[in-house]
Parts: sequence; structure tokens; C-alpha cells
Amino acid sequence: MSGASLLFSCSIQFGVSPPKLAASSSVYHLKSISSFGHSGFSKKSKLLHKSDEILCKALQVENAPCFTVGQKFQLGDVIEAQQFERDTLNAIFEVARSMESIERSQILKGYLMATLFYEPSTRTRLSFESAMKRLGGEVLTTENAREFSSAAKGETLEDTIRTVEGYADIIVMRHFERGAAIRAAETASIPVINAGDGPGQHPTQALLDVYTIEREIGKLDGIRIGLVGDLANGRTVRSLAYLLAKYRDVKFYFVSPHVVKMKDDIKDYLTSMGVEWEESADLMEVASKCDVVYQTRIQKERFGERFDLYEGARGKYIVNQEVLNVMQKHAVVMHPLPRLDEISVEVDRDPRAAYFRQAKNGLYIRMALLKILLIGW
Amino acid sequence: MSGASLLFSCSIQFGVSPPKLAASSSVYHLKSISSFGHSGFSKKSKLLHKSDEILCKALQVENAPCFTVGQKFQLGDVIEAQQFERDTLNAIFEVARSMESIERSQILKGYLMATLFYEPSTRTRLSFESAMKRLGGEVLTTENAREFSSAAKGETLEDTIRTVEGYADIIVMRHFERGAAIRAAETASIPVINAGDGPGQHPTQALLDVYTIEREIGKLDGIRIGLVGDLANGRTVRSLAYLLAKYRDVKFYFVSPHVVKMKDDIKDYLTSMGVEWEESADLMEVASKCDVVYQTRIQKERFGERFDLYEGARGKYIVNQEVLNVMQKHAVVMHPLPRLDEISVEVDRDPRAAYFRQAKNGLYIRMALLKILLIGW
Amino acid sequence: MSGASLLFSCSIQFGVSPPKLAASSSVYHLKSISSFGHSGFSKKSKLLHKSDEILCKALQVENAPCFTVGQKFQLGDVIEAQQFERDTLNAIFEVARSMESIERSQILKGYLMATLFYEPSTRTRLSFESAMKRLGGEVLTTENAREFSSAAKGETLEDTIRTVEGYADIIVMRHFERGAAIRAAETASIPVINAGDGPGQHPTQALLDVYTIEREIGKLDGIRIGLVGDLANGRTVRSLAYLLAKYRDVKFYFVSPHVVKMKDDIKDYLTSMGVEWEESADLMEVASKCDVVYQTRIQKERFGERFDLYEGARGKYIVNQEVLNVMQKHAVVMHPLPRLDEISVEVDRDPRAAYFRQAKNGLYIRMALLKILLIGW
Repeated sequence: MSGASLLFSCSIQFGVSPPKLAASSSVYHLKSISSFGHSGFSKKSKLLHKSDEILCKALQVENAPCFTVGQKFQLGDVIEAQQFERDTLNAIFEVARSMESIERSQILKGYLMATLFYEPSTRTRLSFESAMKRLGGEVLTTENAREFSSAAKGETLEDTIRTVEGYADIIVMRHFERGAAIRAAETASIPVINAGDGPGQHPTQALLDVYTIEREIGKLDGIRIGLVGDLANGRTVRSLAYLLAKYRDVKFYFVSPHVVKMKDDIKDYLTSMGVEWEESADLMEVASKCDVVYQTRIQKERFGERFDLYEGARGKYIVNQEVLNVMQKHAVVMHPLPRLDEISVEVDRDPRAAYFRQAKNGLYIRMALLKILLIGW
Repeated sequence: MSGASLLFSCSIQFGVSPPKLAASSSVYHLKSISSFGHSGFSKKSKLLHKSDEILCKALQVENAPCFTVGQKFQLGDVIEAQQFERDTLNAIFEVARSMESIERSQILKGYLMATLFYEPSTRTRLSFESAMKRLGGEVLTTENAREFSSAAKGETLEDTIRTVEGYADIIVMRHFERGAAIRAAETASIPVINAGDGPGQHPTQALLDVYTIEREIGKLDGIRIGLVGDLANGRTVRSLAYLLAKYRDVKFYFVSPHVVKMKDDIKDYLTSMGVEWEESADLMEVASKCDVVYQTRIQKERFGERFDLYEGARGKYIVNQEVLNVMQKHAVVMHPLPRLDEISVEVDRDPRAAYFRQAKNGLYIRMALLKILLIGW
Repeated sequence: MSGASLLFSCSIQFGVSPPKLAASSSVYHLKSISSFGHSGFSKKSKLLHKSDEILCKALQVENAPCFTVGQKFQLGDVIEAQQFERDTLNAIFEVARSMESIERSQILKGYLMATLFYEPSTRTRLSFESAMKRLGGEVLTTENAREFSSAAKGETLEDTIRTVEGYADIIVMRHFERGAAIRAAETASIPVINAGDGPGQHPTQALLDVYTIEREIGKLDGIRIGLVGDLANGRTVRSLAYLLAKYRDVKFYFVSPHVVKMKDDIKDYLTSMGVEWEESADLMEVASKCDVVYQTRIQKERFGERFDLYEGARGKYIVNQEVLNVMQKHAVVMHPLPRLDEISVEVDRDPRAAYFRQAKNGLYIRMALLKILLIGW
């Protein structure tokens, strides 16, 4: 996964070292963020590749984060949760915070966003399109992007991207294949945001989750979070684990039916990062200790024929009034939505039910990312 | 259906009594019509409920309609035809009339409308989206909203609404289930317009029908209207009967094949309202007497296996040149569209063919409703 | 096909004779290009028909093309490649050229385009919608327009157009039936652009192809072009042959598998126009002579059961590095896209690979057409 480093570009005056740069051999993109003449810019970026790489390696030496206005590193694309360091997250959250107070704005007037969705995800699409339009930008929507690359026609994703980048200023892509987002970013001369690539990543969900925790609890260092439900298949909880591992004294509790328990790769990653974690079968006890109870849906579609396993797994850990009763006053319940009955409706009335505020935060995070990628910090 | 009263809210300075208020025990919504911070407003509305109710009951006493600018009652949602009293209809038509002269406007600039369609209805959707954009507003479109609440994911309509209200300022919803619109309105803290809920209601169609009659004939009191075709299943003609019953000296003629004759509930309702009606099998005679011949399509989809019954029903009453020949000079032919052959194409050339003007009026009515719900009278 | 003449309208002060006018008996449309009150205009156009016809015939006498600003003939609709004479093409290309330098504009602010797509074509739709939005216009999208005229409901295309023209200022239509575009144009009182009607025409593709040749080679007279691949079914190459036949000293080379060779009607047309053409089985030799190698995709969908024939046809003529090696420095490779493997990816790196620039030119051509049809030259 050399993808991470690919997602940063460095410029001559200032920059920041991409994560795991030394470990990476991939090139850097300097993305055009102007509204037209992309082809010109993309040529430029090709020319800059080598010097870029040298420059970035050089910049590792004095790795001073610089966040005064106009002094921020440039974000090229948004592809995976791991690409964000603490400094980047703080900077993004700062912008997102400022978006909360915007009634409506025209700062992205004249910019066009293409929502290239190879599988439908109305919730995510509407959130991005609302974000773009709140900032005065325009949207080109496609929900049947598969038609672009249908077996019948067989166009490659790369060819599709080369066509679409001629029509828009930024691409928000949802794809059914892991890794599709990085392929798109490597091809495009305009910014690409990954809105979910199959079992791969859904970085904006991870960002809004972390943003919500900070907004609700007031801190990220020292957080105690219980991840509940489907931890094996949930893209969300896996990305969340990656991101929170960047903070200090975080403690994870994994509460899940055996068939969908957290996989070893994440556990090993957390251990290697020195992050504490434990598995538990006792939701009540975990709920009483945590700042955040992060519930997830058991995804029926992942069980295929084994309906019996699904039935056994779902309903094992429900967040209801009893769970609320043992939770601390300041703690919150989160959920990526949609939910079935893993959170009882009675919980909605409790101020600690943060999941609809969490959904709304997705709007602010996406407004922030669109602003940063299109017109800078 | 206590829905009707639910659709009005009263404000401190002024108000009007909701229809059948005494008979109703439901709460009133004071909908946020600002472009952001809905959650805040919805909380406020909860606080206001009790005082609201008291206020509204009080207002029943001196039930003076007050339609000077800035003195209009507030419309919270548009859910069913019955919610509109004469005064409300007049006020809406007044605004719609003013919309006819608008080339383009920016009065809704910065406002976002979400078209949440659980079943496709391109005609209705385009009409709403055109209306919103004519006024400078923006649109978030979803035609596959079922995907939101698919059996696979099983999200409730209420959860979907709570999410979407975070992205938009007003929701226009088409649903396949009767009563879905009221559930959405009760959940949402932003205005909801029912664009058709299954066999239930399609109030904006009813409004544009009445508006068209007034525009074409110049009056509503004393109207003689012949409802022709499928009177059993047609949402349209049923809502129309409800609305026209609010006017004086209206007379209905029902002309339909036996299998799709007008149902007793409507007949009883009209009788209870003191509205004259009669059934007839003689289209020519009815056409010669009426101000409006309202033709409808026999809906094949309602006959299931009984193709024989469908074939028998359709084509029994066709509006053609002969019918035009007996109609009065000032009378008009209306149709909700789409039409098959229940109106011959030859009729299109006659100035009394009002159905395409009727479709255009849908644009003005929807422009008016969006303006009223978002920025007031 | 008297359609061509249908596509021009003449105005009192000035005009130009429509192509093959004498041969045609069809009426002329004076299209409303104002943002509202179409019905009024359409009536007007009906009134003007007769005088129009007389006027246009009269104008044939002194057939002076007049292209000074405000003195251009009016373009009513865009239906088929044959409707464009050299003068029209030059005028359109002039406008398209000016569009290349536009970052963003508001000249179409307040105008609404309806994309009425009876079959999905994401590429074409996005290109039109991007064009409209780049100029500040708004879009009403429908990709399931079949639902409008579904067998179940059975509305005619004419009725659909009469409804949609009430919601929009211009209609861009993609249809599965040959001739649908002309039917729409004859019905509508607003401009109609054909975005492809089944096996019929795709005129904007033809325009962008010719525009690309002029931009890349610098001339159109004297062009030598090799049409490669599926010449029997390719709408594109057929339209291209029609258009280039209007220029001087053009020479065509047809290189295709026998099963999909160029049909006689086009060959006869070229001969009748005095245009040189020859068939060849030697791609290398043709490539070495041509200014433009226009490659096309062998359309599997056209072979039905005969998969063997498809396999035999595809892969017979591939544009790869060897072909590039024999091509002249100034020559270019074009392709309407999407491509499969009929052009090897290695070719993309060569500056003579013009197909992505060609796709981008589609944006400028469509911007130009929208501007001309909505607010004039």
C-alpha cells in the first residue's frame, strides 16, 4: 500500500513529509486545483515528479509542521484514512469547524464536482453534493457509472477518468473494487476523493467519525472507545482504528459476536503502534468505562448462505436504555448508519445519542475537504 | 386521519385555525424555514407545542382570515388536499399567479431542496426541480431512494428523514406507501411536500387542477365538472372532489365504466358537504352541460389478470371531436397526463384543450409552495 | 429526410437558405429562445410558418451568407450532421474556439436545459451538463425517460415533449429510435439537440470530430483521413463522412474487416459529391499517408449470436506503436471512445494521440451550441 504517500504533493516554498515516505517509492501528484486547463497542469505535474520526490525527501529532515494560513501543505487527493497525520487532521477539523457556521457561501462558485458512483450510495452522494452546493459549487451526478465501464463496452477506469477530468474540477468516486480510488488518483490531473472503494477504504467516514468524537467529547488523546458489532467486515471500524492509533493513550474495547470479531491485522497494527486494546463479551461493563460506544450494523450481505450465523450474530449486542443507564454522563453513542435494531429507538431521545449529529458532521467534513482541495487552506 | 391539522403551525403574533382542529389531538409543527441550524429550530418547535395548541384553539374564536402581506398563517408542510381551506387556496393561487410572470428569480438562492423519490415519477420530479431552479434554488436528486431503506439494509423512513434533513432545507417526497408523507412530516424539522404517497394523496396535483379551473373558467363557485374515466383508482379525481367541495354550488357528474365507478366514501363526503352530484352513462349529455370535462386514464396496472375488464373499460368514454362539438365555447378539457387514447389527438388543436396548460400550471403552483414554505408569504 | 431544412428558421431582417430547401416541403420553426412563455412563442411560430416559408424561398435568390455579429442566421435545432453547411460549421467552430478560453461564465444564468435520455449515455450526458453549467445554466436530468413513455403508460413522445418544454428552455434528447429527434423538434417550441437517436444520428459527435481535425491539423480542405474499424454500424464515421464531404480535396481511406465494411449509400454519396475514397486492407500503408487515423470500436452488441464473426473482426486492425512509427509527424490518432484494445495503451503517451483532447473538444462544441441556440450568435 504505497498509496498513502501518493496522496501528498510538495511545493517549492513549503511542504510536509508524507507518511512512511522513505518506505514508499511512488510518485507525487501536484494536482491542478484551477477550474480549467487541467491538461496543462497535469503535464506540469509530470514534469515536476522527479524534483518533487527529491524535494519531499529533503523536507523530511526539517519536518516542521506549518499551519499558518497560506503555509499549509497541499492535499492532492483523499484516498485512505492512513494518509492523514495528526497535523493534517487538526487542520482539516479546523476548517470543518468553520463550516458549521456557514449558512451559505459562494467560495466554490464556478467549480464543478463529478460524483462518479459505480455503485449507489444515496446517503454519501447527497452528503457530498449538499456540501458542494452549500459552498456555491455545481455537481455532475452519475449513479450508473458502471455503464461507463460495462463489460459490454469494457472501457478501463483510467480511460473513464481521463474523460471525466475534462468535464469537472474534482472527482468524488464510489467504486466496487478495492484500490480503484488510487488508480483514479494516479490517472487524474484533478483531485480525487474516495467515497468508498469496495471492501477497501471510506476515508471521509473515518474523518467524520474522529471529528465527531472530538466535537462530542472535547478531546482525542486518552479516549476510551468501545467498537461494537461487526468488526470483521466493517470498513468503518477498521479505518477508525487506524486513525485513532495516531493519538495518545487511546484504549480500544472490541465487543463482537465471534463470527465477526476484529481481525488480527488491526490488532497487530495497534500493538505495533503501542495502542492498548482488549476484547470483551460484556457490553455493559465496556459501556460503563467508555467515552464512546461505537455501534455498527451486522451486515447480512456478508453471511451469504449462512443465515443461521447471521441470526446468531445480530441482536447479540443491542444498545438500549439499560446500556444508557450504565454509560457515563459525558459519553456518547455513535453509529455510521443505517441502523436496524442494534440501537433501540428509545435511545434516540437521549442527548448522548450522537449518531444523527455524526451524520450532519459528514457535511462539514466534506465541505472542508472540497474547499481545501479546490481552493486551498 | 388527523394529519390535516398537523400541517399547520401557528405563530405568536397571528394565525388561523387549522381545519377540524377541535376534532384533532395532534401537535403542530413550527417548521424551521431557515437554511441551516434545523436541529435548533426543531427543538424550539418541540418547546412550542403546548403553547401552540392553546394558542390555536384560542384563535378559533375570532377566526378572521388575515391575508395582508406578512400577516399570513404559516404553512408547515403539504401533505393532503384536505388540509387546504378556501382562504389558503386563494392565498396560494395569488402567489402562483405572480409566479407566471417571473422569467427567472434568485429569491431562493442558497436554499436546497431534496427530491426523495422512492418510486420514479419523472414528470412530477422535473416539475418540482424546474420550480426550485426557476427561483434560484438548488436541488439534491434521488430517484432510487428505496436504496436508502432497502430490505437488505432496512433503515426506517424516520431515520432516513433525520439524515436528509441535515443536508437540505426542504424535502419533496414520493413514496409507495400511503401515510408515508405524514410520517416524514412528523419526523422532519424542515418542511415536507408530499409528491404522492402510493394510493394515498398527491396534493400538488389537486392544487394545480383547481388552479387551472379558476384560470380557465374564471371562477370556482358554481362550477359544473364532469369527472370521466377511472374514478375508483384515480388519486387525482378523489382529491379534486375533496377540494372542490369547499366551493359553493359545485355540481359533479361522474361518467365511468362500472368496474371503476366513483366509490361511496367520496359520494357520502360530497353529500355530507351538501355538494350535488350525479352519475351518468351519457358523456355527450354531460359534456354539453359542463364547464370542465376532466378525463382520466384507465389504469391498466390496477386490473391485474383481468385484462378483459381493462379492455372493456378503456375506450368506453373517449373525448374526441364529437364531444368537443357539444361542449360550450367557454368549457375546457382537462387531464392529469399521461394520456393514452382517452383523448383523441385531434382535440389538441382546439383552444379548449387545456391539459398542456394544466401541466404548465403545475410549475407555478410548485414555485408558489416552495416560496411560501421556505421564505414565507 | 427532409429533416435538414426543418432545422433552420429564418427571420424577417436576415436569413440564409436552408440546405436542399427546394427539395423540401417541411415547415420552419422559429424557436422561442427566451426563458419563459414558450407557449406564446410556439403559437407565434405556427402563425409565422407560411410567411416563413415564402420568406425562406425568397431568400434563396440572394443567398449571401452573413456572419457579422447579430447578422447570423438563427439555428433552431441540432438534429443531423447533414444540416450544417461550411459557413455554419465555421461559425460554430469560431464560437467553440472562444469557449476554450472561458474559465467560467454566467451568460446562460437562469436558463434551464432538460437532458431527456431514453437510454443512458453517461459520457454524452455529462459533457452536455458540464457545458451548460460552465456557462452558468442549470440542468434538469432524466436518465430513465423511458418511464415517461413506458409501454405501461404509453404516452407518445410528442406529449412528453409538450410537457417538458413547459419546464425547460432547451431539450437535449437521447433516444433509442431513429427519427425521434426530428419528431421532438417538430413538436417543441424550444430548441432540441439530438444527442443520438438509435442507429440514426449523433450530430454533436460529428461536429466535435471535425472541430478536432481542424484544431489538430489546422485545416479541413485537402485532408486525408483513414476510417478504421466498424464502418458499417458506426454512426460516428457515417456522419463524419457526410460532414467532411463538404470540404475540398478530401480523401477517405476505409480500412475495416469485411463483415463491417462501409456501406454503399455513403460510398455513393461521396462519389456523387465528387469526393475521392478507396478501400484498403493495409492499415500501415494508409496510416503512412493520412493526416488522421480515425479508429473505432468493433461493436460486439451488433453481432448478436455470431460471436465468431465478432472475434474475427476485432483485433484485425490495431493502432499500436508500429502504426505510430509509420505515421507522419503532424498526423493524429482519433477515436470517439470508449475504446477497448483497438488502440494500445502505449499509444496514449504519444503526442499524436488526440482522442482525449477530442473528448474535451466535445465540451467546447456543446458550450457553443447551447450558447447559440439559447442567446444567439
